[in-house]
Amino acid sequence: MRAVALGGGHGLHATLSALRLLTDHVTAVVTVGDDGGSSGRLRRELGVLPPGDLRMALAALAAPDDGGRRWASVVQHRFGGTGALAGHAVGNLLIAGLIEVLHDPVAALDEVGALLGLRGRVLPMSCDPLDIEADVSGLGDTPDEEYRIRGQVAVASTPGRVRRVHLRPERPSACPEVLEAVHAADVLLLGPGSWFSSVIPHLLVPDLREALVTTRARKVVVLNLVPEPGETAGFSPEQHLAVLSEHAPELRVDAVIADEAAVPLPDRLGRAARAVLSPGGRVHTAPVAAADPVVPRHDPVALARAIGAVLAGSGPRAAVAADAVAERT
Amino acid sequence: MRAVALGGGHGLHATLSALRLLTDHVTAVVTVGDDGGSSGRLRRELGVLPPGDLRMALAALAAPDDGGRRWASVVQHRFGGTGALAGHAVGNLLIAGLIEVLHDPVAALDEVGALLGLRGRVLPMSCDPLDIEADVSGLGDTPDEEYRIRGQVAVASTPGRVRRVHLRPERPSACPEVLEAVHAADVLLLGPGSWFSSVIPHLLVPDLREALVTTRARKVVVLNLVPEPGETAGFSPEQHLAVLSEHAPELRVDAVIADEAAVPLPDRLGRAARAVLSPGGRVHTAPVAAADPVVPRHDPVALARAIGAVLAGSGPRAAVAADAVAERT
Repeated sequence: MRAVALGGGHGLHATLSALRLLTDHVTAVVTVGDDGGSSGRLRRELGVLPPGDLRMALAALAAPDDGGRRWASVVQHRFGGTGALAGHAVGNLLIAGLIEVLHDPVAALDEVGALLGLRGRVLPMSCDPLDIEADVSGLGDTPDEEYRIRGQVAVASTPGRVRRVHLRPERPSACPEVLEAVHAADVLLLGPGSWFSSVIPHLLVPDLREALVTTRARKVVVLNLVPEPGETAGFSPEQHLAVLSEHAPELRVDAVIADEAAVPLPDRLGRAARAVLSPGGRVHTAPVAAADPVVPRHDPVALARAIGAVLAGSGPRAAVAADAVAERT
Repeated sequence: MRAVALGGGHGLHATLSALRLLTDHVTAVVTVGDDGGSSGRLRRELGVLPPGDLRMALAALAAPDDGGRRWASVVQHRFGGTGALAGHAVGNLLIAGLIEVLHDPVAALDEVGALLGLRGRVLPMSCDPLDIEADVSGLGDTPDEEYRIRGQVAVASTPGRVRRVHLRPERPSACPEVLEAVHAADVLLLGPGSWFSSVIPHLLVPDLREALVTTRARKVVVLNLVPEPGETAGFSPEQHLAVLSEHAPELRVDAVIADEAAVPLPDRLGRAARAVLSPGGRVHTAPVAAADPVVPRHDPVALARAIGAVLAGSGPRAAVAADAVAERT
């Protein structure tokens, strides 16, 4: 089974951790709009793709042997102290250096992938750094007046209400390798993650959006466990789907996975899902949250089971995948 | 043939480039007193071993295939621009990160060695960062008054005359792996390089000095092509040998290799060499400088031939090595 997961940050890390329990053929497609932290500093200083989310995806797919674990801990390691390097992850610096030397982000990521014994591949959504902009209301004195704010950090932390997001440049190209992976995929996962700044951006790259709409892969949206303070503060699961539909009305998916405890009104979610589901598609609620984490996060095994169950419901090929969870965990 | 080369910086790079033409079993032993540039910044910021000379030695021994060359160019790559990373070599950051994660400089260097497909091994002289101090005359109003200056940069660039060098801490331990390599070596090279700050320091580590004196390896001193502005400004080849002898009177070597053009008075060098040569030892002059370089440097093939010739003169095992130069180049 060839799986593609689109997203960024910790949300993508969660889907990758689940997918690797189901298959060795996982491609991560990572947003490249980050402008905060170590990534933002590298981007501003060197003009390279923000490497942080790419690094996290690589670590999530590292081989489960000594070498993979050792290198994963090295690339994830952050320098401490109070100096010029404080907060930089070693892997971010390595990815930035590889991109400068090889002049090719995909080749650079493949090199780090080889180092980690990667099962699968990590690709940037676009080969050029992008900026995320959002139209936000509730920032000024007039409640409905909209302001255009710029940058993932600004969008993710806005105290206003995000209405829609845009990319700058407005119509970037997807990496060709991403389009190939989307078309070759058996299953495709969108979300969870920062909805406006990590998930929606994939739908704003014209050729990627077209590939997502036209691919024959089974498409699954994984909803967040909780609204995010800032960009989706107070958002219900239904609102997450509505936002998706507003940004890409022509996209239809085969399933929506939601955490049981995060859906107070299943009927309402079911109705909202009609706008994004294909004929025969369904909402699958299951307990997919990790037990008592400090920060809410998906449990990889539970999420893998949910993905397996969703795929089993739509064909014999996928049922094999569902069995595989039991074997691998 | 197992070879060990002791030194630091560009001088060590030269011997390693020559030795790799003779054998796959090369161990580099690198001074760890650097306090300048990218290494100095990392050392001050993170408290790690200064990685620059270690990185350069690793690059010199990288496998001569695509993977080795690619990773060598990545670790040698320096970030440009005007930001916080400007001037840092990617490999320095990677070595620093590996040391922090693995808590073991030798294991960290072995990991980078594996990445580069290393033929041989690169070891730090000591597992703790050291400071080099020098007693220098000619700095004040009274010509013979001596000042104690501290740090490799200060020593290397002093306008005064270096009389002797010391380490801080005064009696550091050598890495155990270094002692093993010195005892197991067939041939051992000391120099070329910054005489006081890269070459002599090896003789100031008590257990390393004892190993160098007692090992059954053939020992060869490779003299510099020109005096270095600063620490050895105006030094003749004879003075280089005199300094060596003053710092380790009990050390006897089997050969001294000098560039033909750098020895205006061969007889005088011959007499000076008596203080450091074993019975039967000899001075070997040959054209070992690269033709028309911007900065004077040894030509790897010419230096390999000279080493081969010196070894051939002292036994049949070494004659094989001399033949090997022709085969490999």
